[in-house]
Amino acid sequence: MTIAKLIYDVPRKNADLMYAAEFDAPDAILFLEKNGKRYLVLSDLEVDRGKIQAKVDEVLSLTDLTKKANDRHGKTSIAYVIDALCRSLRVKKLCCHPDTSFEIVDVLRDLDYEVMPGSRPFYQDRLVKTIRERNYIRESQHMVFRAIGLVRNILRDSIVRRKRLVYQDSPLTSERVHQMINVFLAENGFDNEDAIVAGGAHSVDPHNVGSGALRANESIIIDIFPCSKKTGYYGDATRTFCKGRASDKLHHMYQTVKTAQLKALKTIRNGTRSTDIHQTILDDFTEAGYSTTVKNGRNVGFFHSTGHGLGLDIHEPPRIALNDSVLKKHMVVSVEPGLYYPDIGGVRIEDLVIVEEKNAQVLGSAGMYWEKDLVIE
Amino acid sequence: MTIAKLIYDVPRKNADLMYAAEFDAPDAILFLEKNGKRYLVLSDLEVDRGKIQAKVDEVLSLTDLTKKANDRHGKTSIAYVIDALCRSLRVKKLCCHPDTSFEIVDVLRDLDYEVMPGSRPFYQDRLVKTIRERNYIRESQHMVFRAIGLVRNILRDSIVRRKRLVYQDSPLTSERVHQMINVFLAENGFDNEDAIVAGGAHSVDPHNVGSGALRANESIIIDIFPCSKKTGYYGDATRTFCKGRASDKLHHMYQTVKTAQLKALKTIRNGTRSTDIHQTILDDFTEAGYSTTVKNGRNVGFFHSTGHGLGLDIHEPPRIALNDSVLKKHMVVSVEPGLYYPDIGGVRIEDLVIVEEKNAQVLGSAGMYWEKDLVIE
Repeated sequence: MTIAKLIYDVPRKNADLMYAAEFDAPDAILFLEKNGKRYLVLSDLEVDRGKIQAKVDEVLSLTDLTKKANDRHGKTSIAYVIDALCRSLRVKKLCCHPDTSFEIVDVLRDLDYEVMPGSRPFYQDRLVKTIRERNYIRESQHMVFRAIGLVRNILRDSIVRRKRLVYQDSPLTSERVHQMINVFLAENGFDNEDAIVAGGAHSVDPHNVGSGALRANESIIIDIFPCSKKTGYYGDATRTFCKGRASDKLHHMYQTVKTAQLKALKTIRNGTRSTDIHQTILDDFTEAGYSTTVKNGRNVGFFHSTGHGLGLDIHEPPRIALNDSVLKKHMVVSVEPGLYYPDIGGVRIEDLVIVEEKNAQVLGSAGMYWEKDLVIE
Repeated sequence: MTIAKLIYDVPRKNADLMYAAEFDAPDAILFLEKNGKRYLVLSDLEVDRGKIQAKVDEVLSLTDLTKKANDRHGKTSIAYVIDALCRSLRVKKLCCHPDTSFEIVDVLRDLDYEVMPGSRPFYQDRLVKTIRERNYIRESQHMVFRAIGLVRNILRDSIVRRKRLVYQDSPLTSERVHQMINVFLAENGFDNEDAIVAGGAHSVDPHNVGSGALRANESIIIDIFPCSKKTGYYGDATRTFCKGRASDKLHHMYQTVKTAQLKALKTIRNGTRSTDIHQTILDDFTEAGYSTTVKNGRNVGFFHSTGHGLGLDIHEPPRIALNDSVLKKHMVVSVEPGLYYPDIGGVRIEDLVIVEEKNAQVLGSAGMYWEKDLVIE
């Protein structure tokens, strides 16, 4: 008996649904695929737009199915609507998106459906990007480097007063830089929930987005990962700068991270094992004197993954870490080694690559390193 | 035996989690509450930041719990991590967020946990807003009206050539207005995933965000609902404009919607039933000659809810429609009647109100109506 695939979620919270139906909506919608035929159930509010925009074979009315659910069960919650849909399509076995609410699945099982969870991502095709998807990511990454270039120029044009940066006559803070990044990206049609502009102590905490005054002679991590409003695809890159003079220790650490990243970029191709990439970086760091450990209750060294897939989600499989994932041709992944020590600072360098048969193509490589990296005088 | 509350989700995709932990992160995190004590489980990457920022009693290490899960089960997926957490806290009964993945709950039940779904929202307190939350929404709504004012000025300053709007010497499109709204909101610290700038035929389709040339003598619906980056709270308002001359039919329809909205705003107070608000508007519309029906396969008339709660989510309960919800003091809800007919156009007017004991306080009422509404000459 045929197993139907089912997703019930808000498209913009569920990239699998966006991928499957190519339809954006602010509220939860119901998607079912049976024998390669795709159905979308939409409210009166969305149904006309769905018929025009959604890439499905048939758009059905939520109102009609809700009536059927009510006639049969005297209930109208979504599980009963799913029952009405499945009855009309003669479906009894469901492969549901693994994010599906257990409250819904409990009801479906009570109604004698056989329900099993699908994989993550729901469509494994999503991991390998089509040429259209690769171009979308390339476009987004191009914009990320333009934004990083903007920040670099702001740092260049800032002056130093009492060790603090001053830009256009007022103190330069992480918040001001965030704002300038947000405006630039909005002007260019990108959504930007967050960016990291983390100086000094904040740079040592990899997910701290940064706040307060930016200072000279400290590392400043700039990590930008916006989403194109037009295509829905993300870009993601990180550069580390230091306005003024970098300590010898920071210089050395920066060169160590850069060397590790360049080495990793050269090894990646179809068939490369994630664990090999990550372990090599860890080993090289340890050999260079940067061990990963817990010191005074804090993680120091290299304590995050080397990278992640990206596309309609900012973080997709595969994760490049000590696991059994293997990179495949036309996956798009980040490569972002970093080192973090409270007494030296944080350094992270991140690029995106398209995995090819025999090598990795770095996206936006023109902007990859500025002539003088790290230090901005 | 105590029942613990549990949420496993990405905070920015789950407002209940944001509400419970007051901690933002781009990846899924684990939250548990037992006897009023709140625990958050974070990865090495987030744990130091979490200890500073999260409003919980204890931050636990995902790495430690994963080790325990592996020692016991030889498995490290999140359900086994939840098991390790529950063992350490002596929890056997779980009230899980209703969005919790059935894949996780299946494993927990196999491990003999009693798992039941919590309510929506998970914390019922969320529906009634504290003074701090009401102020946050008020601030966001203030920004929404500034953005609508900006659009109104753009329409005012546009000229008409061959029935199309021209602004600063180039054609005015929905896309250009979207862009200007996005930039304005980014400049002011707001995220804006979408806005509706829908003219003519698009205005008749309530969730069409609009595209292409904006034309004179047609209704243009402007619906803006951004989220403050600082507070996480939404604002939401809609106005309908017409550049040039409005037909008598459009004028009449606009006045009908406006009258219905003002009447609804006057009836709302603690204890008002949603169904009464919605039914009154439907009846008034029908009486004024605007029946709600399906014509040539399209919905026409008033075919969406009158309103919705809002806060950390753009759409929260209660929905103001034909249902059994009752408005309570200090809920914040939208009131947004609309009428949509392909031969006349679309009209929607939306405001937010705080429900008070004896009345409703309209937010941002200064900008509520411009001196001359609808028509902009």
